[in-house]
Parts: sequence; structure tokens; C-alpha cells
Amino acid sequence: MKQFYVAIGALIEKEDQYLVLRRSPEKDVGANLWEFVTGRLEEEEDPAIGVLREVKEEVDLDVEVIMPINTSFFYRGSKEYPMVFIVFWCRYIKGEIKLSWEHTEYKWVSLDEAINSEELGLFRKGFTIIKKLKEFLPKDFKL
Amino acid sequence: MKQFYVAIGALIEKEDQYLVLRRSPEKDVGANLWEFVTGRLEEEEDPAIGVLREVKEEVDLDVEVIMPINTSFFYRGSKEYPMVFIVFWCRYIKGEIKLSWEHTEYKWVSLDEAINSEELGLFRKGFTIIKKLKEFLPKDFKL
Repeated sequence: MKQFYVAIGALIEKEDQYLVLRRSPEKDVGANLWEFVTGRLEEEEDPAIGVLREVKEEVDLDVEVIMPINTSFFYRGSKEYPMVFIVFWCRYIKGEIKLSWEHTEYKWVSLDEAINSEELGLFRKGFTIIKKLKEFLPKDFKL
Repeated sequence: MKQFYVAIGALIEKEDQYLVLRRSPEKDVGANLWEFVTGRLEEEEDPAIGVLREVKEEVDLDVEVIMPINTSFFYRGSKEYPMVFIVFWCRYIKGEIKLSWEHTEYKWVSLDEAINSEELGLFRKGFTIIKKLKEFLPKDFKL
């Protein structure tokens, strides 16, 4: 029976813009690449709670979870780190962005900018999903 | 850095009815309780692929994933089995139900029956979420 590390990601929405960040050159994996807030689940942690903690740690914002939107499997760097990745669509509540050592830059982008951004690479998938959901769900929707 | 087992669940919809199953008396955990299809993710498996495999193994149906709807953390039986649970809303495609040794009975129930069913216990949460999403999403929606 196989065990995994669990990674969580947050696509943070604020007035129809989404937060993307550039990974620090000191990161062991994916240095300098653009991404959204991601991190690893801690012991005994509920994923939807862990994602709030990660957002607080990485950008110092308070957000709420709208819903989980995507899951995937990958190896982080090497075969020793099998990861299941759960991405949550989140909504900004309050706070001013303060970056941690993990990122050097941030910007707020529209859904279409994110979807068409080559620098976001595989991270674009989540934005495509949100676009699909927003066709139908009301502006203040939350599970 | 903590590792988890990953469990996946499938809320299978067929003409506005949902599949629930009674766990076999031989199960080490939760014997005789009602649930939906659940199972454990295998090595290198994408959760949205693993859930299709589990559905096939447990009830022999072909389904498609509509979207992930809920995640949680729990211990399965003992502290040795920390589990992250990912629940997917799925749509029936084809097949006749054939139960495995893991279940003794099944039935198709409406969303409201599931939400009000005491025998489903904690498994009711996912049905409440689907009810909320179905207020807005078209009948054939799929991420």
C-alpha cells in the first residue's frame, strides 16, 4: 500500500484577478518559474485547512476556499517524492501581500492572461477550470 | 515531511439517482455501514484515474469524472493509516452493477434521500455539495 506526499495549491481570486508568483532562485525545484501559491500538507492536516495556512505563510493573505478544482500526481524532483496535488479555488478576504523567501515577485492577472501565459506552463490548467465554472456559478459562490 | 495514504471516493450519478453500497461484514473497518464507492490510490496513480479503476473493481461500471468536490483527512482505523480522502462527482456511462466481496447490497437513491439518510453518516457531505452545484451547473456539465 503506497504512501504519498500531498501538495496543495491556491488559485486566489480578487476582483476577477488571480495571484501568480515567481519562485525564488533558491528553490531546489522549479527555481525562477511562475506559479500560484503551493505547499505541502502537514501531519493530520485537512487539505482545505492546509491551503489556508500555506497562503498565510507564503503571501500573508486571508482567503476562503471556494472549492477543490483539480487533482494530479507527479514526482517532485525525484522518485523519492511521489506527490498528490490538490488545487483549490480560493477567494481573497483581507490582507496586504508580504512575500516569503520562497518568491521574489508577484502579480495579479486576469483569467485569460493566466490561461495564455507560457510562463505558467502546467499551472495553467487550474485557470481553465475556473473559467469553465465561472460561466455558471454566481460571483459569490462557495461550497 | 509527512506522508499519507490517499483514498478516493466516487459519487456516481445516473438519471438523478446516486449509487450507495453496504460494506461487507468482512471489512476490517466500517463493516455493514452504507457508503459510496471508495478505495485507495495506487503507486504513481492520478486520483481522477484511480477513481475510475476503483469504480470498475468494486461495481464494474464505466463512469466519467465530473469534478472533485470534497477533500478531508482522517485516520483509517489506527494512527498508522493517515489518509487524505478526495471525493469525485462521477457520471454513469455504461455497465451493469456487479458487486465485489467488499459490498453485500446496493441501491440508487435521490440526492435528498442521501442527504437525509442517517445510515450514510459522514458520507452525506458529498451529496450536500452536489445539490449546491446542481442549482447552477447544466445537466451535462463536466470539467
